[in-house]
Amino acid sequence: MSSAQQLSDVETPALVLDRPRLARNVARMEARCRELGVAHRPHLKTSKSLEVSRLIPSARGHGATVSTVREAEYFAADGISDLLYAVSIAPGKLPRLARVAETGARLHLAVDHPDTLRLLAEGWATLTEATASVLLEIDCGEHRSGLEPDDPLLLQLARSIEAATGLALGGVFTHGGQSYGAAGPAGVRAVAESERATAVAARDALRSAGHDCGIVSVGSTPTAMHAEHLRGVTELRAGVHVFGDVFQAALGSCALDDVALSVLTTVVGHQRHGRCLVVDAGGLALSKDRSTAGLAAEHDCGYGLLTTREGRLLEGLRVAHAYQEHGMVELPSGASFADFPIGSQLRVLPNHACMTAAAHDCYHVVDDDPERVVAVWSRINGW
Amino acid sequence: MSSAQQLSDVETPALVLDRPRLARNVARMEARCRELGVAHRPHLKTSKSLEVSRLIPSARGHGATVSTVREAEYFAADGISDLLYAVSIAPGKLPRLARVAETGARLHLAVDHPDTLRLLAEGWATLTEATASVLLEIDCGEHRSGLEPDDPLLLQLARSIEAATGLALGGVFTHGGQSYGAAGPAGVRAVAESERATAVAARDALRSAGHDCGIVSVGSTPTAMHAEHLRGVTELRAGVHVFGDVFQAALGSCALDDVALSVLTTVVGHQRHGRCLVVDAGGLALSKDRSTAGLAAEHDCGYGLLTTREGRLLEGLRVAHAYQEHGMVELPSGASFADFPIGSQLRVLPNHACMTAAAHDCYHVVDDDPERVVAVWSRINGW
Repeated sequence: MSSAQQLSDVETPALVLDRPRLARNVARMEARCRELGVAHRPHLKTSKSLEVSRLIPSARGHGATVSTVREAEYFAADGISDLLYAVSIAPGKLPRLARVAETGARLHLAVDHPDTLRLLAEGWATLTEATASVLLEIDCGEHRSGLEPDDPLLLQLARSIEAATGLALGGVFTHGGQSYGAAGPAGVRAVAESERATAVAARDALRSAGHDCGIVSVGSTPTAMHAEHLRGVTELRAGVHVFGDVFQAALGSCALDDVALSVLTTVVGHQRHGRCLVVDAGGLALSKDRSTAGLAAEHDCGYGLLTTREGRLLEGLRVAHAYQEHGMVELPSGASFADFPIGSQLRVLPNHACMTAAAHDCYHVVDDDPERVVAVWSRINGW
Repeated sequence: MSSAQQLSDVETPALVLDRPRLARNVARMEARCRELGVAHRPHLKTSKSLEVSRLIPSARGHGATVSTVREAEYFAADGISDLLYAVSIAPGKLPRLARVAETGARLHLAVDHPDTLRLLAEGWATLTEATASVLLEIDCGEHRSGLEPDDPLLLQLARSIEAATGLALGGVFTHGGQSYGAAGPAGVRAVAESERATAVAARDALRSAGHDCGIVSVGSTPTAMHAEHLRGVTELRAGVHVFGDVFQAALGSCALDDVALSVLTTVVGHQRHGRCLVVDAGGLALSKDRSTAGLAAEHDCGYGLLTTREGRLLEGLRVAHAYQEHGMVELPSGASFADFPIGSQLRVLPNHACMTAAAHDCYHVVDDDPERVVAVWSRINGW
């Protein structure tokens, strides 16, 4: 593409990525991990982008986290050589993961059930001679997946891993996803301590029984930002911090001014009933995620907050309704349709950056000039 | 691909399309339009698939509806020669649409505002010598977009269209999207009558002022199924009927046994807290659409209902929570983890087929044998 494209020439809806904000967000989390004395294994499921991953030093210096096989293939092919696929492994995914391991990448696979391990142990060695590291998933209170640290299955799984051909026990990992429902910073801090203490307890149980446990991995963006200390933890996994979103801002993990991702949209209608702007970013362009719906009313951002095309927040404007291709933005009193002419462009700061980004196949990158596209960056979707 | 692939060999999550149900759903709506004495202009935003469109006789015999420029390009290139782009036109989209018109396809563009028309009139004739038909959008009570039939702007717009180079007044269209919130079949029937009466009133207003109004277009799947009569209407637009979904079933537009689209998923965990199966279809594979959340509790299907891999409904099982790649399925009393082993496959019937399908790039088509993939069909996403 021409390097001089203006946002005004970009067809909408389209993702816009603010590179200075992205760089600040990345630097903040890298510094935070240094401060906490842990390595960072960034979760790349948010950006799913080579170009974004190349800006995060720890992704290549230490390793990265992914949520799909396609991400593993994509990032391994770009030289990320240590990858945690952090979802319990389904047997049908083993052949492609084995091919990733054959390229020389070190793969860590997630297990929390004897049957998962049995299927993995039966399958892996028939597919490759490469060794897969297995991380045991620990439940620190979210109750989505994982074993409690005192579950006798933990030691049974460790023994089975050590007995299996082609598998090695890499350590433990946990995710305090309940931080997204925590009450304020103190609540998030308590979840961070649950992550830490639970992962360390699991490590201790394994070590007491004579097993290695090199990796003690925790994390989410909110707990990373609020943890008091992470003694005993070796690495932290944060994902959404690179972009931020209005939900993270409501949780205090970032400021609204840090949100680096937005959806460029065009005003295509003025609906006088209800005094709504109609924009061409609906449920497909924004996702139907309503993460902020569970928050106090003043934090409910509908399907996203509006800014001008340059990125200046428009107080009181949010996408109240999202149809497939239509978004409805209620005008607050004091604003008028004349302020938002048909054909003019706005941006939407998303509720949940991971979900919104997944609706698009590239990023339009802006730099110090917030209306000039300096690059188009790739991303990968699907599985 | 091999034509003998089994669902058990398909990597999850993946879309499954039941061809016999699809064919029945298509035939039912085509018959319904004949019964109502109107043409059918199917909305292809649901399937976004060449192969699906080729099964709908009216798409090529009469014309089709699309919601993105990319759909217009994709279907025009496959020979659909009469297309309504049913979202108010943003000026940045005109160049690509003009190229579609240059291929010989007849394009109908949506207008409900003088500024939209001004931008269209200024732009179109500089781009192509092909004539675009303009349909005036009428608001029949949804208040999303469109003009009321007695709005003086209607006649002003008609005059401006007739005065513009390269534009022709094609007629009027309306969409009774409020049918999705209607109270039962009688409520939907009333919305269908609003669609009809409002569109016909707009036609009459145009004709009384001496304008042509060839197209009187209405529709949504629920109103199509429940309308008493459509006197004065020339065509109906239904979209989601091809697949159906659990929301349509709750509205009475189809039966659960008619739902042709599902997401194949693998059980990857047994979470004893909360007695949940963990499946590898989360918010990205299912979408975060919660259309059934507004219905009576017995119709709230979470993020979708579960069936066996063969498609047999599993009473009481639904995806209660959806994370990015994890879905949580609460086990009802009476069911046990042993019934759903780790590594086994299930299917999820979606809340909202349009949103769920958009998360995927192809369909795995099954026929009379519900576990044998007989074809892989394409679909297009993005804008």
